[in-house]
Amino acid sequence: MMIGEKDKDRPWLLGRPEPRVDGLGKVTGEARFTDDLDEVGQVWGVVLRAAHPHARIVSLDVEEARLAPGVVAVLTARDIPGNPFVGGVVQDQPVLAGTAGAGGGAGHDLDRVRMLGDGVALVAAETEAQARDALGLIRVGYEPLPVVTDPREALRPESPLVHDRGNLVVHHGVRHGDPAVGFEYAHRVYERAYATPRIEHAYLEPECVIARPVEGGGVEVVGSIQNLFSTRRAVASVLGVPLNRVRIRHAVLGGSFGGKDDVMTVMACRAALLARATGRPVKMVNTREESMLESYKRHPYFLDYRAGVDRDGNLCAMRMDIVADAGAYASMSPFVTYRSVVQAAGPYRCPHVWTDVRAAYTNNPYTGAMRGFGSPQVNFAIECLVDEIAEDQGLDPLTYRRRIVFRDGDVTPTGQRLAGHRVSLDEVLARIGDASGFVDKWWRYRAAREAPAAFRRGIGVACSYRGVSLGAEGVDAAATFVQVQPDGSVIVSSGVTDMGQGAQTAVAQCAAEVLGVPLDRVVFLNTDTSRIPDSGPTVASRGTIMGGSAAADAAAQVRARMLEVAADLLGQPVKNLVIREGLVGTGGAEGSFVPSRLTFADLAGECFRRGVALAALGWFRAPPTSWHEETGQGIAYFTYVYGANVAEVVVDSGTGRVRVEEFWSVHDCGRVVNRLGAEGQVHGGVAMGLGYGLLEEFEVEQGVPKASNFDEYLIPTAMDVPRMHVEFVENPDPAGRLGQKSLGEPTNEIAAPAVVNAIANATGRRIREIPATLEQVLIGRRLTRSGLRGSEVARGGEASCKVRGEEG
Amino acid sequence: MMIGEKDKDRPWLLGRPEPRVDGLGKVTGEARFTDDLDEVGQVWGVVLRAAHPHARIVSLDVEEARLAPGVVAVLTARDIPGNPFVGGVVQDQPVLAGTAGAGGGAGHDLDRVRMLGDGVALVAAETEAQARDALGLIRVGYEPLPVVTDPREALRPESPLVHDRGNLVVHHGVRHGDPAVGFEYAHRVYERAYATPRIEHAYLEPECVIARPVEGGGVEVVGSIQNLFSTRRAVASVLGVPLNRVRIRHAVLGGSFGGKDDVMTVMACRAALLARATGRPVKMVNTREESMLESYKRHPYFLDYRAGVDRDGNLCAMRMDIVADAGAYASMSPFVTYRSVVQAAGPYRCPHVWTDVRAAYTNNPYTGAMRGFGSPQVNFAIECLVDEIAEDQGLDPLTYRRRIVFRDGDVTPTGQRLAGHRVSLDEVLARIGDASGFVDKWWRYRAAREAPAAFRRGIGVACSYRGVSLGAEGVDAAATFVQVQPDGSVIVSSGVTDMGQGAQTAVAQCAAEVLGVPLDRVVFLNTDTSRIPDSGPTVASRGTIMGGSAAADAAAQVRARMLEVAADLLGQPVKNLVIREGLVGTGGAEGSFVPSRLTFADLAGECFRRGVALAALGWFRAPPTSWHEETGQGIAYFTYVYGANVAEVVVDSGTGRVRVEEFWSVHDCGRVVNRLGAEGQVHGGVAMGLGYGLLEEFEVEQGVPKASNFDEYLIPTAMDVPRMHVEFVENPDPAGRLGQKSLGEPTNEIAAPAVVNAIANATGRRIREIPATLEQVLIGRRLTRSGLRGSEVARGGEASCKVRGEEG
Repeated sequence: MMIGEKDKDRPWLLGRPEPRVDGLGKVTGEARFTDDLDEVGQVWGVVLRAAHPHARIVSLDVEEARLAPGVVAVLTARDIPGNPFVGGVVQDQPVLAGTAGAGGGAGHDLDRVRMLGDGVALVAAETEAQARDALGLIRVGYEPLPVVTDPREALRPESPLVHDRGNLVVHHGVRHGDPAVGFEYAHRVYERAYATPRIEHAYLEPECVIARPVEGGGVEVVGSIQNLFSTRRAVASVLGVPLNRVRIRHAVLGGSFGGKDDVMTVMACRAALLARATGRPVKMVNTREESMLESYKRHPYFLDYRAGVDRDGNLCAMRMDIVADAGAYASMSPFVTYRSVVQAAGPYRCPHVWTDVRAAYTNNPYTGAMRGFGSPQVNFAIECLVDEIAEDQGLDPLTYRRRIVFRDGDVTPTGQRLAGHRVSLDEVLARIGDASGFVDKWWRYRAAREAPAAFRRGIGVACSYRGVSLGAEGVDAAATFVQVQPDGSVIVSSGVTDMGQGAQTAVAQCAAEVLGVPLDRVVFLNTDTSRIPDSGPTVASRGTIMGGSAAADAAAQVRARMLEVAADLLGQPVKNLVIREGLVGTGGAEGSFVPSRLTFADLAGECFRRGVALAALGWFRAPPTSWHEETGQGIAYFTYVYGANVAEVVVDSGTGRVRVEEFWSVHDCGRVVNRLGAEGQVHGGVAMGLGYGLLEEFEVEQGVPKASNFDEYLIPTAMDVPRMHVEFVENPDPAGRLGQKSLGEPTNEIAAPAVVNAIANATGRRIREIPATLEQVLIGRRLTRSGLRGSEVARGGEASCKVRGEEG
Repeated sequence: MMIGEKDKDRPWLLGRPEPRVDGLGKVTGEARFTDDLDEVGQVWGVVLRAAHPHARIVSLDVEEARLAPGVVAVLTARDIPGNPFVGGVVQDQPVLAGTAGAGGGAGHDLDRVRMLGDGVALVAAETEAQARDALGLIRVGYEPLPVVTDPREALRPESPLVHDRGNLVVHHGVRHGDPAVGFEYAHRVYERAYATPRIEHAYLEPECVIARPVEGGGVEVVGSIQNLFSTRRAVASVLGVPLNRVRIRHAVLGGSFGGKDDVMTVMACRAALLARATGRPVKMVNTREESMLESYKRHPYFLDYRAGVDRDGNLCAMRMDIVADAGAYASMSPFVTYRSVVQAAGPYRCPHVWTDVRAAYTNNPYTGAMRGFGSPQVNFAIECLVDEIAEDQGLDPLTYRRRIVFRDGDVTPTGQRLAGHRVSLDEVLARIGDASGFVDKWWRYRAAREAPAAFRRGIGVACSYRGVSLGAEGVDAAATFVQVQPDGSVIVSSGVTDMGQGAQTAVAQCAAEVLGVPLDRVVFLNTDTSRIPDSGPTVASRGTIMGGSAAADAAAQVRARMLEVAADLLGQPVKNLVIREGLVGTGGAEGSFVPSRLTFADLAGECFRRGVALAALGWFRAPPTSWHEETGQGIAYFTYVYGANVAEVVVDSGTGRVRVEEFWSVHDCGRVVNRLGAEGQVHGGVAMGLGYGLLEEFEVEQGVPKASNFDEYLIPTAMDVPRMHVEFVENPDPAGRLGQKSLGEPTNEIAAPAVVNAIANATGRRIREIPATLEQVLIGRRLTRSGLRGSEVARGGEASCKVRGEEG
């Protein structure tokens, strides 16, 4: 209401490449990450982890450890005063596994370990070395249980149960039209199986917390925690105290990418238990090996796609059957697979779409939120499939996509009409096509691939639409608190957290835009759950739209009060007044600005002297969504973003090595808030996506991970990053208070298919299982164990095309 | 607006004797005072203090100290990057005195010390012992200057100047009517001189801060700081950084009584300078000796009162000339004397009142805010004088007071018509008279005093009116932030600070009253200047009315949103709904309440799920006031409180020892918020007032204090506290959002005159200089140096009465 059209249509500060508000501290080393913090009198907490991926605990003896030098406390599941289980959606994860009868009545499920990362006991000691030494003195008796590691097998009735209630974590279905009718009508039908890997978030900073007891039975926890509010819920539940007795504070985070959610919740609960038990501050820091073992991963997916195309080349039916490996605990699987089921068919018009996505428990490391959140997997599948269809249709893949992508008013497979915002995918594709010279190159490289060559060049495209923020499955609202000080300096704090992605800068820039002050006047505080309302998790690329919109709301409230005083001082009506660059002046409808001699700082001082409230709590509640779980129909997300990637690669014909030389990325994320930050997101997201497509796989055999550190688990380095070309198509969205939407995850979700499609363009070889390892590029199959079963690999062949006209 | 009449007229929780929200932590020892905090890597900061009460610094050599073992930094005035002066009203106090030319251009005034507590250099070292040892290695060359110690002398033109701009700090005058006319008309005229002592706040916890550098050139300071926002202003100014780079946090405070304002500002600035210079956390703790030497005191006053009474015994003219000793720095003197000039004539109708109050610089310890803030001094004088007049008129002092006190619609000496609230002093006096059996006892004890007796009994009364909150001289607004958590627990934070007085409980109880939840659901956070708007100082007994009204405002905003959801859930119109005791129900206009099955906690959960903002920033701006400095006319305060004390004493005729046996205290502080807290305030305020009347004097000779610790400076102990009878006359005030007003200072400002009047009742001896020491009680004069000059003591005798009818 108080955000005027001026704010939305003619920003003066949004879009500028402003330096990060937290940049200087990070560059100078003044920024303090959790491990830089220490408290006087602190003890070290460590975890004894499971020795088997699946076993019943029959005995647990901690007496010797209790007597070890320096040991202050040893805790087991029996020492948990509240609920011993945590879990953001399903409370299925024990803070500590225990022997039978341990814990608060949750009973039979607590007495076993389900993955190697599981905790069995906690030790707090004066030094880390003493604590780790004492772990060796704890005696655990295990009765090993059969292990299940393939989620497709886990769903069979005869499989060992990871949880007594069954191995099916969740099953989402979308039922749109009738594929039987669509396939009947189809001219050609394509059936393909795809597989995507389990990967590690690989944040630079391993997990770390410090918990200390506070009066009234509570605790305060500071840590590298992505989702402070769900951590607070869990800690309060585990301690059995109300939410207001638990305070979770954010330290400077060294990366998260969705990864510092549940794992940090568990760590915070453990540290809180030790803090209450010892009465002292407790510090816990995972080694990289512990981090890799304990932390959840991106879900491996197995994806069966079937698509029918009519005589004009339009998609007329789609049927998808997808299974995700949830690992030992549900974590975010219900929500991750929700996004998959919504977006599985890609941004393409198709009247008949049925999709099933199921997630299954296994004894693998558990899987949860990771940048993309269920989209990188389905995007890989649909973008490879569409690429293949295009080529089969005799079209280059960009032209084909432009023919079939959503446009304004189209209806998605969930029955949602795309309206109220600009459905700009065609514009995005046109722009990336022009920028990269796609069509011409694609035909040229395709033609060249028949001739022998040591190096082949290829170009590939992928695109996506992506639902903004949480969608219909979550409460979607956020708070930002904006305070102007009497000297005109500004303090912003938000329920939205910064994990390194730049949320502080984006949210601060939204506040500064509306207040009319330069960004360097703003200090942004780390989030503190006792100082700002529960704003949900900072996930789903929702920081800029939710936190930024709440910031704009707060700033508009403060500005309105300040402008009343300015009107009095300047003898001008409020509607004529504008604040920009820290100066108060008059502005016309056409965007003109004539500064007066009144500065923002002086105005703030005068407001203070008049007793005007210079602070406001901003709140942004997302527009309504809807969802019918049985049919998978509804307004799945209140708006969408659109993006496209083009990769140009050189393939070494002798070794299969793929070098990504050049990369184009075009996104419509609504109004760009900070150009530097936005471009940084794209660079990082693409680099991460290239790792997904070419390098990364966190391999697990019979529940035992093969890699334990970065010597064995490879991620892209700066040398692997191609020349980047980033462009934005800016269509301010009515949903964001300043027209802004999302960018963090869209940048990451289509790099892999663009590269794999480029490899196909270069070599003619369609790789359907990532990472596209050397041997796949070279000989078309994996030498190591494949995620795809033999029959699926076979089905992926050209032979499986049904060509209607050629039938019976 | 959103506070309904129900809240104001029929509270369900206000008035209950609820336990303090911070009580458990203090009882169990879990509460952490600043000295309980330590930071890893911290250094200790200490201050080299002036060796003379007045001297020019001609040389300053810190080189040897810099090389001493463990020393990390030695700072002088030259090392101050910003403004080297601080001061809440007048910036006249150097953070460090320096040699000529030091500091940022404030020049000539910086190079001298003006009191023994002044700082000359700072040392930071690894240990406190090392730091203190290094102080001995600093060489300071002083050129002693003449000392002035009597404020009346200081105002003479020939006096040495403490500050170059002259020794007059401030001069307030009230010109109401024309005393010449009034005295002309008077039947009898009374001229009396009074003196009140310099006293020490005597908080249990000496001054303590920890400052640590934060990124961006700022600092964070946690400490036992009463006024966080003025401390922030000073630290930012001294460091030369914007306000948002300085964060001041409140630790649990061990008492302040107005005393942890400027002295903490200076300490915070010094610690901040050391923190920036060393890059490490810096802890500073005053020893009790340093505290007594450095901290400011209550102003000693010299008061000349002249009052004319007409034939009916009514006051017809008053003329007051008052001089306050400001000591070396202005501190709060301009505001302290403002309250004095407004209230000097007491709560009595009088058509002609002229008052002058001046404060003068001396080389004594500086004086500033202390509980009462300029009222204990003038109340002592006027209450003694009125008591004497009553007796002279042949009336008991209670009956006489009831005849002349303000009633609804009366006009004060500042020309303010007392309207809009209930002027209840007559009711208060009637109540205390009944409770104590005053009139009968007074006549009985008066009659008995003629006969010889080892012990004499006496009863005395005193009363006052007191302007609520800051009055016309300050910005008067405050913020409170109320957050309901999804489980129905509540977090409250406020710009109002808790120094031990119970502000947390009072403000939390106001929030709980409006929200409808039991008080134990509320957690109150210590104040943090980066998390709440500048709410002014927590002084002037304004915590409950300002912070509590802001809390009610915030809670009403949240409640309104919650009731909308409740209306939806219960199918009832919002106007029928009431929340009480954590239950949602329906209520009638007559105060009935029928709970439904919906609890507050469940409603909070449902609101959270619907994305309703469960938090609000409350703001309370005081009603307008006005002031003409030349005439002293205006609406000095937006409302007033009324109170009376009665003391019953036993005087040992042989030794002069006074034992206060019984004490009655009746106050109209508007709506009582927490009966237990209110009674506690009265107990504490009275005990402190008895010390003022009977025991305490911080003696200074030629600028050198005589006492340095509690072995030499006596305050009352629990054994000195009489049997207390506390009653409240509750007239809810329209100004407070819930009808509440103030109590902290009214309890303290009239104990001394009640006791001294009781001594007069017992002995016939009028003591006009407190404390009423043994020799004054016994022989009518002080054996130690008197504050009153010989002529004034003489003038105080009965002979000075002018009896009009008996004149030539």
